[in-house]
Amino acid sequence: MGASTDDTFRILIATDNHLGYAEKDPDRNNDSFETFEEILGIAVEKEVDFILLGGDLFHENKPSRQCVIRCMDLLRRYTFGDRPVVFNFVSDPAENFKHAKNPTVNYLDPNLNVAIPVFSIHGNHDDPSGLGQMCALEMLSTAGLINYFGRIDNLQDVTLSPILLEKGRSKLALYGLSSVKDERLFRLFRENRVKMLRPREDLDSWFNILTLHQNRTRHGPTSYIPESFLDPFLDLVVWGHEHQCLIDPKRSAEDSFHVIQPGSSVVTSLCGGEADKKQVALLEVNHLQQFKTTGIPLQTIRPFVFQDLCLADHDLDEENAAKPNEAVEALVERKVREMINSSKEMLTGHSRQPTKPLIRLRVEYTHESQMFNVTRFGHRFEGDVANPGDIVLFRKTRLDAKKGER
Amino acid sequence: MGASTDDTFRILIATDNHLGYAEKDPDRNNDSFETFEEILGIAVEKEVDFILLGGDLFHENKPSRQCVIRCMDLLRRYTFGDRPVVFNFVSDPAENFKHAKNPTVNYLDPNLNVAIPVFSIHGNHDDPSGLGQMCALEMLSTAGLINYFGRIDNLQDVTLSPILLEKGRSKLALYGLSSVKDERLFRLFRENRVKMLRPREDLDSWFNILTLHQNRTRHGPTSYIPESFLDPFLDLVVWGHEHQCLIDPKRSAEDSFHVIQPGSSVVTSLCGGEADKKQVALLEVNHLQQFKTTGIPLQTIRPFVFQDLCLADHDLDEENAAKPNEAVEALVERKVREMINSSKEMLTGHSRQPTKPLIRLRVEYTHESQMFNVTRFGHRFEGDVANPGDIVLFRKTRLDAKKGER
Ligand SMILES: [Mn+2]
Ligand SMILES: [Mn+2]
Ligand SMILES: [Mn+2]
Ligand SMILES: [Mn+2]
Repeated sequence: MGASTDDTFRILIATDNHLGYAEKDPDRNNDSFETFEEILGIAVEKEVDFILLGGDLFHENKPSRQCVIRCMDLLRRYTFGDRPVVFNFVSDPAENFKHAKNPTVNYLDPNLNVAIPVFSIHGNHDDPSGLGQMCALEMLSTAGLINYFGRIDNLQDVTLSPILLEKGRSKLALYGLSSVKDERLFRLFRENRVKMLRPREDLDSWFNILTLHQNRTRHGPTSYIPESFLDPFLDLVVWGHEHQCLIDPKRSAEDSFHVIQPGSSVVTSLCGGEADKKQVALLEVNHLQQFKTTGIPLQTIRPFVFQDLCLADHDLDEENAAKPNEAVEALVERKVREMINSSKEMLTGHSRQPTKPLIRLRVEYTHESQMFNVTRFGHRFEGDVANPGDIVLFRKTRLDAKKGER
Repeated sequence: MGASTDDTFRILIATDNHLGYAEKDPDRNNDSFETFEEILGIAVEKEVDFILLGGDLFHENKPSRQCVIRCMDLLRRYTFGDRPVVFNFVSDPAENFKHAKNPTVNYLDPNLNVAIPVFSIHGNHDDPSGLGQMCALEMLSTAGLINYFGRIDNLQDVTLSPILLEKGRSKLALYGLSSVKDERLFRLFRENRVKMLRPREDLDSWFNILTLHQNRTRHGPTSYIPESFLDPFLDLVVWGHEHQCLIDPKRSAEDSFHVIQPGSSVVTSLCGGEADKKQVALLEVNHLQQFKTTGIPLQTIRPFVFQDLCLADHDLDEENAAKPNEAVEALVERKVREMINSSKEMLTGHSRQPTKPLIRLRVEYTHESQMFNVTRFGHRFEGDVANPGDIVLFRKTRLDAKKGER
């Protein structure tokens, strides 16, 4: 993009913070909060105009009181303050937030001093449910702590009315599509019942961002959202729900828009995708509708080492052993110790990064006599590994990587 | 008291709002919120300095999301705004709110524009529990919506450190004692392990208010708090938990202080005490430590008529009837119709007062043949009574009134 100017939007993009994940685990209970705090700190440090979250802010549909309280406390500490918000909200908040008790954007509330507005859709983990069909994000928005948008209440015809923001000459249209069951949304798209309204004025001068929270990977014929379904007028799609961090914008097949997939900010499943370096993105958009993203590696992520071990590749001399699994266990133990060692390379020096690693070794075996009790095996790593009970995962044949929890 | 001056404190006192009570009842689901909103409106209209709540703000320990959201919305709408708060907070908030994530008083937070601070203790309904031992009020206080005080964390030695407020020459010391199991607190008092700290300066110039949430009525030898346990330096005790409204301050037996018992702002049990007119109190305290309370009748309370019927007092001609209970049922029906009629006298004309009354008739019978099915009986009052299923309560012998839920 061209040189950044005063009217260039600066936006911090993150998703799937899963606050409260492993909240009862004595080792891991703070992980999600530490990194969320790091992200908020980055937003402050980078002096962004706002934060955009892609859903699954909370891990549980009904987060614990403590989880909600910790989240509120962080939002109040990092996003409130005297720094002026310098962009204008030019769409109708009554339309953008029509589900809300108080359909306004928090930074324009004269009773709140908001420095960095947070805009968020909901994910499948924190979707509306229960009495009154409300979601946990609505506790935050009612308290004025976030701006919750993209809630879909009419699942017959989905109409997305963008939040329109102007910063000097730069114009941003923010479309939000909160989590909907993939199959259902797939059908709605296919039946042409998802409409994205366009701004009435200066149609071609807006930079159009869609934030959604759906399967991007094809899990079945209709249980994902193909990129081809999305309107080609879009410029950038922020894809939530997928926990793997693919921070560099990827051009869509039809070359109509770019997709950025920040991934989760806490490891919630011990699969390969979650072992990639986790980052958030600083997005800059200027008045020429040019954009640039900068990946910002997170420093507080608990080290996670994931490897595969195929027993067939090793000469185990099993036949001679009284118990063939003893040779396997010895090999696996060596391997796990190596992994623990290599996890040290993932230490960033951040004072609040947890150091005890997550270790997952997938062991492909050929005969059941090679297996051993993984829980008992884990006991020797207590104190050294954050997940001693499930370090080893045995599999008989090589399949696609187990899909993690999103 | 002497004439009210500019430095007279004006305080709205309410308790036991039980937000979310009967939240799933199609008739009564709004009752608790309507009256809480009325109370907040009174605070605005009377231009009070602050609101003091005596516990059980929420009916459920884990209030529904909808309930928390409605409460937050009301607090934000009524207690935030531009009207300046004109009293000074002169104690140490780190001490008064030491349990809090952010131990400050909300109206001094530069990022919040608070017009009417709310101070609240917790009750037995909304006490701390679960992960991290937090209570629902802490979601509100973390969001900056209330000031939650009087949380007792050391149950070996209870030390109450008052909130000290000054308005011109008037000085107020607010002691909070959130709900503790009666038997436990009784023992702590008896063992002299409840200490109320006194201000270091101008010891005799403070008006001392204690807000507590305990049984006032003796339910057993140690399951209540005798007034004689409370420090005689106190001037006024705000007694929460008891749902009967006794709005006029009553002098304690030892004449050391007065007790005001606002009672609940929603009928949560169909007993006699809850049928009394429900009020909140405007408390005024001047610099001469003189005080005055004014009862303010609530206009949105659902009419509730409670009566006793002793069958022995009526000549029922039962012997002649094929079924003796038919004569009883006819009598009871007449009586209930009278009660429904008399409930109309309780209509205040407030547009948001629910009109369908609560009716409770306690029928004292002498023989079981006089009883009938009260659920079936209630069907004929559907549409006319808010509690058709439990209008009639049969009792064999006259006992003390059933203690209601508090
Ligand atoms: Mn998800
Ligand atoms: Mn997720
Ligand atoms: Mn109570
Ligand atoms: Mn109560």
